[in-house]
This record gives sequence, C-alpha cells and structure tokens, in this order.
Amino acid sequence: MKIAILPGDGIGTEIVAEAVKVLKALDLQFESEQALVGGAAYEAHGHPLPESTLNLAKAADAVLFGAVGDWKYDKLERALRPEQAILGLRKHLGLFANFRPAICYEQLTHASSLKPELVAGLDILIIRELTGDIYFGQPRGRRVAVDGHFPGAEEAFDTMRYSKPEIERIAHIAFQAARKRGKKVTSVDKANVLETFQFWKDVVTEVHAQYSDVELEHMYVDNAAMQLVKAPKKFDVVVTGNMFGDILSDEAAMLTGSIGMLPSASLDRNNKGLYEPSHGSAPDIAGKGIANPLATILSAAMMLRFSLDQAEAADRIESAVRSVLSAGLRTADIWSEGTQKVSTRDMGDAVVAAV
Amino acid sequence: MKIAILPGDGIGTEIVAEAVKVLKALDLQFESEQALVGGAAYEAHGHPLPESTLNLAKAADAVLFGAVGDWKYDKLERALRPEQAILGLRKHLGLFANFRPAICYEQLTHASSLKPELVAGLDILIIRELTGDIYFGQPRGRRVAVDGHFPGAEEAFDTMRYSKPEIERIAHIAFQAARKRGKKVTSVDKANVLETFQFWKDVVTEVHAQYSDVELEHMYVDNAAMQLVKAPKKFDVVVTGNMFGDILSDEAAMLTGSIGMLPSASLDRNNKGLYEPSHGSAPDIAGKGIANPLATILSAAMMLRFSLDQAEAADRIESAVRSVLSAGLRTADIWSEGTQKVSTRDMGDAVVAAV
Ligand SMILES: CC(C)[C@H](C(=O)O)[C@@H](O)C(=O)O
Ligand SMILES: CC(C)[C@H](C(=O)O)[C@@H](O)C(=O)O
Repeated sequence: MKIAILPGDGIGTEIVAEAVKVLKALDLQFESEQALVGGAAYEAHGHPLPESTLNLAKAADAVLFGAVGDWKYDKLERALRPEQAILGLRKHLGLFANFRPAICYEQLTHASSLKPELVAGLDILIIRELTGDIYFGQPRGRRVAVDGHFPGAEEAFDTMRYSKPEIERIAHIAFQAARKRGKKVTSVDKANVLETFQFWKDVVTEVHAQYSDVELEHMYVDNAAMQLVKAPKKFDVVVTGNMFGDILSDEAAMLTGSIGMLPSASLDRNNKGLYEPSHGSAPDIAGKGIANPLATILSAAMMLRFSLDQAEAADRIESAVRSVLSAGLRTADIWSEGTQKVSTRDMGDAVVAAV
Repeated sequence: MKIAILPGDGIGTEIVAEAVKVLKALDLQFESEQALVGGAAYEAHGHPLPESTLNLAKAADAVLFGAVGDWKYDKLERALRPEQAILGLRKHLGLFANFRPAICYEQLTHASSLKPELVAGLDILIIRELTGDIYFGQPRGRRVAVDGHFPGAEEAFDTMRYSKPEIERIAHIAFQAARKRGKKVTSVDKANVLETFQFWKDVVTEVHAQYSDVELEHMYVDNAAMQLVKAPKKFDVVVTGNMFGDILSDEAAMLTGSIGMLPSASLDRNNKGLYEPSHGSAPDIAGKGIANPLATILSAAMMLRFSLDQAEAADRIESAVRSVLSAGLRTADIWSEGTQKVSTRDMGDAVVAAV
C-alpha cells in the first residue's frame, strides 16, 4: 500500500502531520511519500499541481490531502491558483464520487447554530458528483454576445452538462450507500428549470428501479437548501451534481456546528480515493498550532476503510476520536466552557494514545 | 394606476384575496383586473401563461402575484407546467431585479431553527438577478456527447452566461440599495471555478468604483451558504446571479423561521414590478383557510412603495402588520403557545382594521 501525502497550504501541514502520526501508530504496512500541492507547490515549482505531484498521486493507492489556498494568491491568473490543484486531481484521477458526511457529534451539539433538538444525532451523507457538471463542461470563456438581452456586449459563459453514464454511476453509489444506512435517497435537482437536471432526475429514477428496497425522493435545490435548515434529520443520503453538491454539502457541514470534525472522501471507480477534511486552509490561524486535526484524522480513517481495505483500523481511529471528545479535549474551534482547550499537536497525541 | 392581480394556484387565491382587501381599505385610486395563471390557467386555457394574462401584466403598472404549482402537474411536459408562468413573466416583462428581504420579526424570533441570538433583529436584503444566467441561456437541450467522460453517450446540457450590462445594472441596484441601509454589499460568485462568475466579480468590482461609500465584499457561493447559517447578521445586502440567488434567498428566508412573512419584488428598469410572497403554493393546505396572508400583504406594500409611488400607504400596511403581530394574532405556520391562532381571513381582517 502506498499513500501519497499532500499537506498543501495554511493549516494543511499541521493537521496532516497529526493524521500521519495516527496512521503510523496503527502499525499497518504502508509506504508513504509526501509532495507539495497548492500555493506551496506554486512557490516551489510555479504550478499548484506539478507533474511530479500528480504522478505521485496517480501511482499511490490513496491520497491524504490537507487543504490549499491563501488570499495572497488571489491575484494570480486562475490556472495557477491553489484551488486548481484540487480540480486537477479530481479530473486526472477520475474522482467522481465525493462522500461528505454531515454528522453532529453528541458532545458538540451545542456548537451548532441550530437549536439542539434539530441537530442532535444528525447523520446525513451527501454524495456529490465531482468530475462533471458546470465545473468541467466545455465550451466556456468570454466572447461577444450574439443574442440575449444585450447582443454585441461582452459576455462570459460556461456549460453545464451531464451524460447518462455519469448520472447512472453516481446514482448507483448513492443507492448502495443508502442500503447500508437509512435506506432513503434524496436526489437534488432543478428539473423545473434546467435540461441537465431534468435528465438527472429521469436517469436517477431509472436506476432506482434496481433498488426497490431504497426510498427515492426528488427535491429542488432551493427547497433542499431550506429543508436542511428546517429539518435536517429528515435526510439520509443526498445525491446531487457537482455545483449543487458544493453548496449543499457546505451548508450541511456548517449546520453541524463543527466543520472542523468532518472528513471527506473522493473516489474513482476502483475505490481509489483522495481524502481531505471538509474545511479549508484557514490561513488566518496557520502556524499557530491551534487548528483542529480531527477532520483530517477522520479522513485518514475513511481512507483505511474505503481504499485500503482496513475497516478495523478505521474503526479504531473513529473510536479513539470519540474517546478524546468524551475525555473533554477540544481544540479552540470546538471549545466550550467546562472542556479542556488543547493544541493541534496535543489533540493528535491524544488520539494516538487512544488508538 | 392599474394593478394586474394573478392569484394562481393552491393557497394563492386565498392569500391574494386578503392582500386585495387591504389595498382596497387604503382608499387609493387604482384599477385592478384579475387573470388566471399557472395550473389554473392551464386548466382553463391549456397554457400556464396565456396571451391574455401576459398582455394584462404588460399593460399594468404592477402585478400582484400569489403562487403557482401543484403536484398534479408534475407529469406535464415542462413547457406547460405552472412554474413556466413565472419564468415567462420575468422574461417578457424584463423583471431582472429580484428583491428578497430576509427579516426576522421580533415577535417570531423563536420560530427560527437558529438560536435566537443568531437571528434576533436579522435584516438581510438579497438581490437576485432574475432574467439571465443558466435560467435562460441558450443553447440547452439533449444530444449525443462528442467529448467529456463518455463520448457517444446521451447527455443534457445548459448554458450559463452573463453579459457585462446585465451585471452592471444589477450591481448598481445593489449598491444603491445598500446606501439606504447598512452600506455593505456582499457579491456572491464562484469565480474560482466559473468563467461567468469571474466576469461577474470583475464587473461588480468595476461598478463599485462609483460607490466608495459602500463596502464591497466578495464571497464564494459555498462559503455564503455556510456564513448564512453561521452568522447571518453579518450580511447587509447580498447580490448574486439567478441560480445562486434562487438557492441562497430560500436558505436565508428559511433561517428567519417565518417564510410565511416574507414578501418579494421583481422589478424592470422602470420600477414596474411583480410582487409575490417568498413562499410557494402549498397545495397541501390550500382551501383550508389557514394559510398566512402576511407575506402577500407585505408584497402589496412593496408594490405601493416601489412601483406605485405610495410610500406612505406602504408604511401604513407595514405598521399594521407589526401591530397585529404585537396583538398576538398568528396563523398556524407562526403560531406558538400563548398566541391566538387565526384563519387567513381573520388575519386579513385584522390588518384591514389596523391600517
Ligand atoms: C476550491 C473549490 C474549487 C472547491 C469546489 O468548488 O469544488 C471547494 O469548494 C470544494 O468543495 O472542494
Ligand atoms: C418555480 C421556479 C422556477 C422559481 C425559480 O427557480 O426561480 C422559484 O424557485 C423562485 O425562486 O421563484
């Protein structure tokens, strides 16, 4: 087993170091190799996703990713900005299935913006298609408008698109995931406006015929954004496209109040995957040793389960995390009166001690 | 002054009737004419937006709209479904500027999913561009994919686009609105992924040069979906495109906990407008006389202020609504222990008595 370790920018290096420490403590057989990505790679090699980093990721069985981005790169041309590394990895590795759990940990219920009764026990799985949609659709660019409201004016445009097999494969993944959970899938679309999402809805409905044990519900994206606020626990598995998934998975993560706890997995069709925390690179707190490493540590657990066939080791990490929370350890982002504030490193050490 | 009254489907007829009652009680000089729209128009004329209805709307100085839609039309081909009436009215009347306030009424703070301290006093104005973006962009449709992940497969596609003047005019509206409020505009984009929204960001920044007294902040749409949950009161005016605005305005409305209270206005470049509640047609409670008419009554107030130059009459309606709330009257959707549950009609009568 070979793991590519891509810490990235900001707090990325600090939190990935803790996850690696936890992985090493498990006494598994794995090789690992580290590489630069994002702004750090741009500084060193002039590109956020250098060939060497991409090749390492391609050769590995799994990628453990920290976070990328910093305001100081805002003025770079788009192709060189740190986030392009993520888009490039998704595309070149074919990571079409993004798993974003939104879980509200019992010990952290109070941290949510929502009233405790609305989020206590929350456990949603958002499955976002990650290599299609308007993220990668061609053509895109700038041009002179030939029609529309202002023919002759400068305009910019993008193409949203989904092909049938792309929708089918993510729908299968959602139904299969639901089978192991609450047996309900909410497919989010905007079929009342978009051709792409009328097609999405049709194809998901077709695939559903093979999963009669799973309930399928269709919901418009605007309504989904509302229902997540109103009654998040009514959701089990949510499946949607790349753009809507970007928005809804972040909304759902924030509902839990502890985005610093939420891992994510992005898988290809062979269950090779890239694993990263749901939060960003937080340049404002980078280098201070106060970032929460738990989302990254839990991402490593997902990596063991999904890509490296080590479910037992994954379980050990996940129960270790629960036990450090129960012991009252908290990084600053999840700290509250009566609990013990610890550093990034202390939190990693505590998980190591508990596994 | 001529007002076109389009009650539509579901609770639309009930709530519009109350708003009309309130308008009549104000002793203003106006003519009004009613027409069918949505499912009701489809039943009678075979189309959700018949020529006669569109012509009435075109000829009027303002349109008071209820709501459209019912599950029973789900199987109709898209062009005949009730929602197409809204899209058609926006397009044919050139209603490019959608104002969606998200206000948390003091008396209803507890109704929010969010903790009271996060929403008490909330007053956001979301300004959504309403005639551009992927809603109306051409080409769109189904075809055989020539590239992408599955060349040769069936695919569906849509076109996102914005021209410079479209972005400029909505940006001006947002900065001007902010001048009369908290002097801050948050422009929501996805410039890190979409050409259209990199352009959006560039043009909004350019327009901002004329409004140095207003603060401009740029935010990615995924982050905006999070910040609305985390700290909604940090927003003042939010300006964004049609698609993102659809999602974020509904999310923000739901945060207040009382979407039954929220009006909206959709204006053309001469301040002619269509006014409608932010909520939908609620077919499940239609005909029961329990729907909340206040969002529609407040939409009528917006109509008086924006399109009919009757700010004083608008003020009278708005204070009447505050006073019925203070008196403890509540329709079922906003009812809580210790307040008096009233019907749609009783609520309308109470507002009439209070103006
Ligand atoms: C950084 C950005 C390109 C990315 C996305 O939009 O997919 C991020 O928001 C995410 O969700 O991983
Ligand atoms: C009904 C639908 C077409 C419409 C939209 O998406 O604009 C609605 O959601 C709205 O926000 O008014």
